[in-house]
Amino acid sequence: MVVGLGTGSTAKHAVDRIGELIQKGILSNIVCIPTSTRTQEQALSLQIPLSDLDSHPVVDLTIDGADEVDPHLNLVKGRGGSLLREKLIESASRKFVVVVDESKLVKYIGGSGLAMPVEVVPFCWKFNARRLEEVFGYAGCRAQLRRKGGGGDGDAYVTDNGNYIVDLYLERAIGDLKAASEAMMRMSGVVENGMFLDMATAVIVAGSGGITVKDKV
Amino acid sequence: MVVGLGTGSTAKHAVDRIGELIQKGILSNIVCIPTSTRTQEQALSLQIPLSDLDSHPVVDLTIDGADEVDPHLNLVKGRGGSLLREKLIESASRKFVVVVDESKLVKYIGGSGLAMPVEVVPFCWKFNARRLEEVFGYAGCRAQLRRKGGGGDGDAYVTDNGNYIVDLYLERAIGDLKAASEAMMRMSGVVENGMFLDMATAVIVAGSGGITVKDKV
Repeated sequence: MVVGLGTGSTAKHAVDRIGELIQKGILSNIVCIPTSTRTQEQALSLQIPLSDLDSHPVVDLTIDGADEVDPHLNLVKGRGGSLLREKLIESASRKFVVVVDESKLVKYIGGSGLAMPVEVVPFCWKFNARRLEEVFGYAGCRAQLRRKGGGGDGDAYVTDNGNYIVDLYLERAIGDLKAASEAMMRMSGVVENGMFLDMATAVIVAGSGGITVKDKV
Repeated sequence: MVVGLGTGSTAKHAVDRIGELIQKGILSNIVCIPTSTRTQEQALSLQIPLSDLDSHPVVDLTIDGADEVDPHLNLVKGRGGSLLREKLIESASRKFVVVVDESKLVKYIGGSGLAMPVEVVPFCWKFNARRLEEVFGYAGCRAQLRRKGGGGDGDAYVTDNGNYIVDLYLERAIGDLKAASEAMMRMSGVVENGMFLDMATAVIVAGSGGITVKDKV
C-alpha cells in the first residue's frame, strides 16, 4: 500500500500513529510519500519506509489536514506552506481523506477571513501580487507576501521549492472557484494556488458533538 | 520608454544595438528590463539603465527571438531556457516584436521537430514528464529532461528560477493550442510552457529574399 503523508499540526498525529503501527508490526507492506521536507524528517525519525511519485505514481490513500472546508468539500490548504507538494501527491491519490476540527468548516472558500496562499516564483513577485489583487478586485482581494515569523518586515518565507507565498485575503466570495483557480494558474510566475477543488474523498470533522464524516456525494 | 530585452543569439544583436545608440546619445529617456540573468549581464556591460516589472509594470516594447513561428504568429520560445521571464515580461508589453530568420517559420507549433520546453519544479519531475507524455500521447509526445551540455547523462539544466526544463518532442500537431497550454498549466509542478500564443504584435523575418514583416491581423 502506498500512503501519502500530509503536513501540519493535524497530519502530524496521523504520521505518528502510522509510525507506531508499523513499529508494532500491525501495518506492513506499506510505503509512504511525504508532502513536505518537514513531514519527511518526522517520518524518517519514526523509521517509516519512504518513496516518491517518480517511483510510485499512484497513491492509494493520503491523509492530511486543511485550513478551510466548504459545503462541497472544496478546500483551502497551504497555510503550512506545502501546497504544491500536497496538491501533486493528493491529485495522484485514489482516496484523499481530510481531517479537521469544526472550526475549519466555512460557508464559502475564503470565508474564514484567513489567508488563501498562492505560490509564486521570487522573480517579480510584487508585479504578480498586484495582478492577483486586480484580478480578484471584485472580491475585495488584498495580497501580502508571507514572511518568516509572520511579521511585516522579516525575510520572505521560502517554500520547499525555493518559491515565495503571496497570501490572498478576500472580503467576499470569489465566485466560480474553478475559473478563479485557472485564472491564477495562467499567470506566468504563479506556480500553484491553495484551492483544492473536487479532490477530497471524505472529510472527518472533530467537533464538540463528536466525530462526523462527510463523504463526497 | 520602457523596453524589454530578449534572450538568445538573435536578441543579443538588438541589445548590442540599443547599448550603442544609448552610448552615442541617440537613444535617451530609456530604461530596459532584461528577460534573463544572461541578458542582464550583457546589458550591464553596455551600461544600459535597467529596471524590473515591480517598478515598471507596463513595458512599451519588447524585442526578442523565437524558436518557431506559426502562420497565426503563435510562437515556441524557451530553447534558451528563459521562457518564464520572457513570457512574464512579454505579456506585460504593449508591443512585442519578434525577430527570426525564415528557418523558424513552421506550418504548426511543434512542426520543426525540435523541442517545446516546459519548466517544472525539480520535485517529482519524472512523474510530471510521464504525465505530459500521457496527456499529449495523441500527438506522439516524447518528454526528455534537459541536461547541461545537451548530453543524455549530465546534470539537469537549471533555469534562472531554480527549476528544470522538460523538452517535449511532438510527432504531430497538438491541436487546440490554448487548450493544450491550459492543460499543462493546470498540472501541479508545471511552472510555465514555451507556447507564446496570441502575444506577438509583429514578426520580422530575415530570408534569402530580404526582410519581410508579418503583422498581427
